[in-house]
Amino acid sequence: MIHYQNPKLVLGCVPEWEGRILLCRRAIEPRLGFWTVPAGFMENGETLQRAAARECQEEALATVEIGSLLALVSVTHAGQVHVMFRAKLLRPEFAAGPESLEVGLYEEADVPWNELAFPSGEFTLRRYFADRAAGREDHHFAELNRPMKI
Amino acid sequence: MIHYQNPKLVLGCVPEWEGRILLCRRAIEPRLGFWTVPAGFMENGETLQRAAARECQEEALATVEIGSLLALVSVTHAGQVHVMFRAKLLRPEFAAGPESLEVGLYEEADVPWNELAFPSGEFTLRRYFADRAAGREDHHFAELNRPMKI
Repeated sequence: MIHYQNPKLVLGCVPEWEGRILLCRRAIEPRLGFWTVPAGFMENGETLQRAAARECQEEALATVEIGSLLALVSVTHAGQVHVMFRAKLLRPEFAAGPESLEVGLYEEADVPWNELAFPSGEFTLRRYFADRAAGREDHHFAELNRPMKI
Repeated sequence: MIHYQNPKLVLGCVPEWEGRILLCRRAIEPRLGFWTVPAGFMENGETLQRAAARECQEEALATVEIGSLLALVSVTHAGQVHVMFRAKLLRPEFAAGPESLEVGLYEEADVPWNELAFPSGEFTLRRYFADRAAGREDHHFAELNRPMKI
C-alpha cells in the first residue's frame, strides 16, 4: 500500500535594496547556473517568515526583514507550494552561499529573464515589479502544473 | 543520520451561507467531539484552493466556492502550516461526512467558542468575523508555538 505524500513548502523572498533586487545564480541542481530569488524548503519549527529569511541568509549571506505576502504558487506537478514575500535588505552586504555561484543586486531592466531557474520565480518577479510600479502590495495566486522545458 | 522533516500544509475554509458559517464537530481524534472549520491535510496534485474545497466536501458534504485568503498560521510545535480561505456555500446542503459527528450553520453569537478543537480555528474565526464587521477581506498571520491545554 502506497500512501500519498503531502506537498512540501518552499519559502522565498524578493529582497530589495535602493530599488534593486537580490538574485542568486544556482550552484546546485536542478537548474545549476540559472537565476533564482532566494528560496528553499521550509523546516519544522520555523514560521513562514523565518523560513524565508533563513533561506536568504543561507543562499546569499544576506540579512532581510520580511515584508508583505507576494505570491502563493501551487506547483502541482512537483508536489510543492511556493510562498514568496517582499523583503528589505537591511545592509548592502551579500555574497554567494554554498548553494550559489554568484549573488547580485539587479535593476528591473537587468533581470536575466531568459535565465531564470523556475517559473514560480518568474511569476513572483513579474508580480513584484508590476505591483511596485502601481504602488501596491497585493498577493497573487498561481498554479504551475507542468514541468518547464529545459 | 536523521533528516529533518518538512512542515505539512493543512488547508481549510470558513464557508458562509446567508450570514451563518459552517462548522463541523469532529468524529476523530485528536479533539474528538470539538468543533472546527472544515480543514485537513493538503495532498499532492491539488492547489491550495482545491484542497480547501475538497476538505469541505469530505467533512461536511458541502460544495463551496473558495474566496479570498484569510489566515496563514505557522503551527511550529506541530510542524504544520494552516492556510484558511473565506468561502461561499453554493447551496444550503450539508451533512456529517465520515470524520464529523455533526455539521451546522452558526451565527457569530452561537459559535461554540469554548468547544473549538484548535487554536488556529479560533484565530481564523475571530479574524473572519472582525473583518466582516469592518467590511474588509484581509489576510492574517499567526504563530502558534505551544500545544493547547486539553
